Amino acid sequence: MTAYVVGGGMIKMGRHHDSSYVGLAAPAVLEALAVAGISLSEVGSVACGHSFGGPLVGQRIMSRLGGGHVPVTNIDNACSSGGTALRTAIQDVESGRVDIALAIGVDSLTQFGKGTLPLPEADIETESGLVMPALYAMRARRFLHERGATVSDLAAVSVKNRKHGSINPYAQFSSEVTEEQVLSSRPVADPLTLLQCCPTGDGAAATIVVSEAVRRRLGGPAVKVIASVLHSGEYEGGYRDMLSPQISAASAKDAYEMAGVGPEDIDMVELHDAFTIAELVYYETLGLCEQGEAVPFLRSGATTYGGSVVVNPSGGLLSRGHPVGATGMAQVVEAFWQLTKQAGPRQVEGATMAMTHVTGGGIAGLDHGACSIHILESA
Amino acid sequence: MTAYVVGGGMIKMGRHHDSSYVGLAAPAVLEALAVAGISLSEVGSVACGHSFGGPLVGQRIMSRLGGGHVPVTNIDNACSSGGTALRTAIQDVESGRVDIALAIGVDSLTQFGKGTLPLPEADIETESGLVMPALYAMRARRFLHERGATVSDLAAVSVKNRKHGSINPYAQFSSEVTEEQVLSSRPVADPLTLLQCCPTGDGAAATIVVSEAVRRRLGGPAVKVIASVLHSGEYEGGYRDMLSPQISAASAKDAYEMAGVGPEDIDMVELHDAFTIAELVYYETLGLCEQGEAVPFLRSGATTYGGSVVVNPSGGLLSRGHPVGATGMAQVVEAFWQLTKQAGPRQVEGATMAMTHVTGGGIAGLDHGACSIHILESA
Repeated sequence: MTAYVVGGGMIKMGRHHDSSYVGLAAPAVLEALAVAGISLSEVGSVACGHSFGGPLVGQRIMSRLGGGHVPVTNIDNACSSGGTALRTAIQDVESGRVDIALAIGVDSLTQFGKGTLPLPEADIETESGLVMPALYAMRARRFLHERGATVSDLAAVSVKNRKHGSINPYAQFSSEVTEEQVLSSRPVADPLTLLQCCPTGDGAAATIVVSEAVRRRLGGPAVKVIASVLHSGEYEGGYRDMLSPQISAASAKDAYEMAGVGPEDIDMVELHDAFTIAELVYYETLGLCEQGEAVPFLRSGATTYGGSVVVNPSGGLLSRGHPVGATGMAQVVEAFWQLTKQAGPRQVEGATMAMTHVTGGGIAGLDHGACSIHILESA
Repeated sequence: MTAYVVGGGMIKMGRHHDSSYVGLAAPAVLEALAVAGISLSEVGSVACGHSFGGPLVGQRIMSRLGGGHVPVTNIDNACSSGGTALRTAIQDVESGRVDIALAIGVDSLTQFGKGTLPLPEADIETESGLVMPALYAMRARRFLHERGATVSDLAAVSVKNRKHGSINPYAQFSSEVTEEQVLSSRPVADPLTLLQCCPTGDGAAATIVVSEAVRRRLGGPAVKVIASVLHSGEYEGGYRDMLSPQISAASAKDAYEMAGVGPEDIDMVELHDAFTIAELVYYETLGLCEQGEAVPFLRSGATTYGGSVVVNPSGGLLSRGHPVGATGMAQVVEAFWQLTKQAGPRQVEGATMAMTHVTGGGIAGLDHGACSIHILESA
């Protein structure tokens, strides 16, 4: 059976120090329901993706909104929690078990103060003292070495995504930055500077996933799910090619197969640009350009407005922020808005097919981790 | 499509201070696979229920065992995490998406030292200072008042379940206790004494869920899933009947309907006896006896060996312990052993149908919470 996204909602990401998980998520859920034209009592199941909310976040949200009783499953797949929650909601609908599923992504990182994310203690890389910015910096170093690229090429990703984000009212950062500002910002892990790292913050997003029958009854804007993929990774000892993230590559391959489309069919992508280097690597991994061509691809303007595939029209993690469990869901809400022509000044002209991509754990999924990719099409 | 449990594994529950989540779960997973006669590479999806393991527990387990790549979903539904993970695995198989799903339940509570569980901060009852033993003590007080029962009736639950657990090599407690010992143990929250509260500890359990076709190919012992239910609760203000837990009642009603059977068909039940009072309340809630008849039902011997429905043949949470995410899965492994006549000295004679029941959050589910019930039948 086919599943459709018929509603999406999101709050402005940022530092909401005084908000509980219920407070963050409730407006996003209510907006998604209103957009879909569905009441809370019609929801048949709930999948809630979050990493740091403690017990029964989804149940607390539903209870406070007055929509208890339904099966609620809380899902933690680190940075892929939002994407995994969407997949669970899609599976609920595709299996015929329910006609209307609610998927929520929410997290609050300001509860931890500032700094990088806590990593799993038993992760072999964490055991070696490697935190996320350090891992991505190693990857960036390798990239510069192999490709003869420069730090200016890295900075160009921030310049592009902050420009996209500057017209996104839901983004944590709403200002543009120049290459000079990016490169002269505080060093975090050489060659990555502060403005090349996504901010931590709080946020929430929600989508409504329905069956073909419900979609026809509602008759409003809808987006068809043509691929929904989740992968984990294996530990690989010895030499590992940091520029070929196995887990994202495998997920992309499966997603294209499932959808019966190729990278050339995709009009816009929301991908996991936790750091500038990540976007360049994923251009190649997701097949948006040839291996080794990421820098000229970016420099050509292909991935901004007017290009062949607009990457992170929302501004991506670098602008919107990265409230872990919320990110994958926010990407899908952006894709829903774009494919239903509701993206306002951020509208990607003529967009009919979108990909969303989140990945987390280990060194961006070379080791154990979780990657979730969805492909969506205008319905 | 129908789903079958064809393998189960468990470690001895207890205080495993030096074990990681991977270390706890790996032996249970390997045992479940061995029992089923399935190799790790045949597993098509993994659902891992845990509450306190941090990011990507399921991925870490699979990675270290050498079984990466597959979709792994980590699920946290508090005390119902194990039951919810099983439900997700069953849905994966019933939807035809995969033929073989692995469900894991694991948690380590010794990481928190001793004492009661952390509760969600936004829970209205926690905000009022009510922790689990206090909540159950209130329920016990009400029960004694309404039913004219005595503390001796409460203690009889511990006496029965510790007797059952004394011959369960996987139980945290392996000794019997007398009524006098129960009542003279340290007071925790009047009228509940220490030996009326389940211990905290560490543990893991795993099951293999397969399709009809795989079950036929394997040809080994199998148990058919005839009901798999998950419910959440709504916040109810004002007077609430603490002896009628709405969430468990609704789950039981749905489960009986789904299975097309009644309480009289059930030969054994593993239920959520986190405290003695809970078992008495759930006798009635699950329909094992009439409303108001829990004490005479227990006293008649109906719920121990030789009775009409053996409740907690494993010894229940009071004996086996309650490593949160592991509990629901351990119940199902016990049911698998019982229904496939592999329970050794704990064998419930002639058992062909079993129910498992976990519930968590708020006041045992009167407020928001999660309850999962499964009904299994010899295949």
